[in-house]
Amino acid sequence: MTEFIPPGTHYFTLPSPFPMKRGGGLHGARLAYETWGERNAAGDNIILILTGLSPDAHAAANVGNPEPGWWEAMLGPGKPIDTDRWHVVCFNALGSCKGSTGPASINPATGTLYRLDFPELSVEDGADAARALLHGLSIERLACVIGNSMGGMTALSFLQRHPGIAHSHINISGAARALPFSIAIRSLQREAIRLDPLWNGGDYDDERYPESGMRMARKLGVITYRSALEWDGRFGRVRLDSDRRDDEDPFGLEFEVESYLEGHARRFVRNFDPNSYLYLSRSMDWFDLGESCHGSPSQGLAGIHVARTLAIGVRTDILFPLQQQQEIADGLRAGGCQAEFLPLDSPQGHDAFLVDFDRFGPAIAGFLAGLPDGSP
Amino acid sequence: MTEFIPPGTHYFTLPSPFPMKRGGGLHGARLAYETWGERNAAGDNIILILTGLSPDAHAAANVGNPEPGWWEAMLGPGKPIDTDRWHVVCFNALGSCKGSTGPASINPATGTLYRLDFPELSVEDGADAARALLHGLSIERLACVIGNSMGGMTALSFLQRHPGIAHSHINISGAARALPFSIAIRSLQREAIRLDPLWNGGDYDDERYPESGMRMARKLGVITYRSALEWDGRFGRVRLDSDRRDDEDPFGLEFEVESYLEGHARRFVRNFDPNSYLYLSRSMDWFDLGESCHGSPSQGLAGIHVARTLAIGVRTDILFPLQQQQEIADGLRAGGCQAEFLPLDSPQGHDAFLVDFDRFGPAIAGFLAGLPDGSP
Repeated sequence: MTEFIPPGTHYFTLPSPFPMKRGGGLHGARLAYETWGERNAAGDNIILILTGLSPDAHAAANVGNPEPGWWEAMLGPGKPIDTDRWHVVCFNALGSCKGSTGPASINPATGTLYRLDFPELSVEDGADAARALLHGLSIERLACVIGNSMGGMTALSFLQRHPGIAHSHINISGAARALPFSIAIRSLQREAIRLDPLWNGGDYDDERYPESGMRMARKLGVITYRSALEWDGRFGRVRLDSDRRDDEDPFGLEFEVESYLEGHARRFVRNFDPNSYLYLSRSMDWFDLGESCHGSPSQGLAGIHVARTLAIGVRTDILFPLQQQQEIADGLRAGGCQAEFLPLDSPQGHDAFLVDFDRFGPAIAGFLAGLPDGSP
Repeated sequence: MTEFIPPGTHYFTLPSPFPMKRGGGLHGARLAYETWGERNAAGDNIILILTGLSPDAHAAANVGNPEPGWWEAMLGPGKPIDTDRWHVVCFNALGSCKGSTGPASINPATGTLYRLDFPELSVEDGADAARALLHGLSIERLACVIGNSMGGMTALSFLQRHPGIAHSHINISGAARALPFSIAIRSLQREAIRLDPLWNGGDYDDERYPESGMRMARKLGVITYRSALEWDGRFGRVRLDSDRRDDEDPFGLEFEVESYLEGHARRFVRNFDPNSYLYLSRSMDWFDLGESCHGSPSQGLAGIHVARTLAIGVRTDILFPLQQQQEIADGLRAGGCQAEFLPLDSPQGHDAFLVDFDRFGPAIAGFLAGLPDGSP
């Protein structure tokens, strides 16, 4: 896969070797990151954003890259995460393929791509990488760490493993552990990729590429990222116009919803490394905040020390269901945190934070407005 | 695929040609069916069961076959569908592969398997086949037609197309039309089969068989047939014992829930014809009771004349969600039916009617007990 790295991206080289939780270490690994806004003199206006599985570091337009980012409506001057007030850092997850080191990167030990020789990746490694990046940027304390989806898992691990690192936390559609329905979905996505003969044990290239497997995986992802409720209103039973159908194919696309999935899949398959997908997906299945303290997720959460938290969930989310954000708020509160649980009625399911800015914007802006730090 | 047809099965040859809704017709097609209990002199104690996608006609043990059937707990002497009182008929769906004619049957015009030359199959064809079977059995009126899942669609079509055929109706986890989330799931299942190179445009055999595609399709099915709630309690994050894992495979099965899916898939893949699966699956996507009357599903339902209905749904069902059974009850009531909607708290999702007999048994027994006919 040819990597496209946005032009405003900076790179941070992780300490070498960078030890991985499940064994092994990375040499000369790097993280791609971007920043917005100015750091104030006290250094108390800094926010870190931890992403979901697929986003790059370009969350929004900035000096280095005026193109809109994946969270454009949420981040910028005067926006809910107001960069006139906050200095914001976002990085591409460790193990991803958007500038950070992952299975599609060169293994310095061999001079060839890591592929499946990349060490086993866990959410905790992403949390430790975040800590190392902040250290490298001379950031010792955050006003807030924001984590979306997989990033919500990473944020909890980050707070658990690095006590005192953040004053506050916004957890969006995250979870303190993976549950079996989500594991089943992700396992099936990985199986779709692995069953594609062109995956070839991880040894593919642009010419011989597991496009069918990636398309299946992405479609299944999109089905679980959105919601039946949204689709009832959006697509109903509308058919494709005849000029958009292939009448030669008796089982070809017929309904708008099928075409929508196909479009999502086509935009994704060549823009994300299949091995990276496998590694990141598996890391989520492994995640259980309780394991680190040999207890339950609630015990893990209660052991975290952060002053204030907003845990946001969406009623129509089937992948990270609402009770998991309730669990986060309850668990953190048991540990002394001032934690609020906010269930939202967004129809868009797990992906709502990427689209439902009418609900998410005020919630996030309101929480950040109430923080004591961060005066410009 | 080698067909296994239970020994107690009878066969009924459909009128020839049997016209299909979307065009074409079947010559010498047959339905496999079974019966339980005795027909009374008045002929007013007859119940027809219309199945979901995969079951055969052997719903329960009977004289011809003492082996337990797929609805064993529900059907038999003294059971909720009490065969001491009722004469019950169940048949394998048209287009299936368990004795009824479908894509895996011989096409008399060519002497070879139909495969994709089988005419386009719609739910309405199944409804008309049911009517023909009853006529052949000299049954002019049913005390009750019971339809589960896809059979719930077939039952509504049957009642719409054949007015006066039934006094009452039990619709279990059925729907008056397919909605986009379910269409998306089924479309992806079909794509998994079609992407398997061994599907080969429908031209496979036992040696070269699309096993991977069928396994994917079945796993995705099972994920949507059950519920996250059930699996949280049943599997949690329990790992497989090391002797059940393949440590050589870095992305192999690790969690109990993955092994559960794998077991389901393995039991299914060689026991259901892939082309039949494609045809039946697509027929559900096409189904819309409103289309037949050029109106809405509610208008279609209001046009049905049946005296009493029980529409049962399950709160955890994501494939045929609860509001669809509510819609059935409301729509039939608008047409003058005495219709009851019964939402159940079963944790098992769409498949609950196959396992949660503590909830389904009394509901069905109670409804049947209240029917005026059917004295032995």
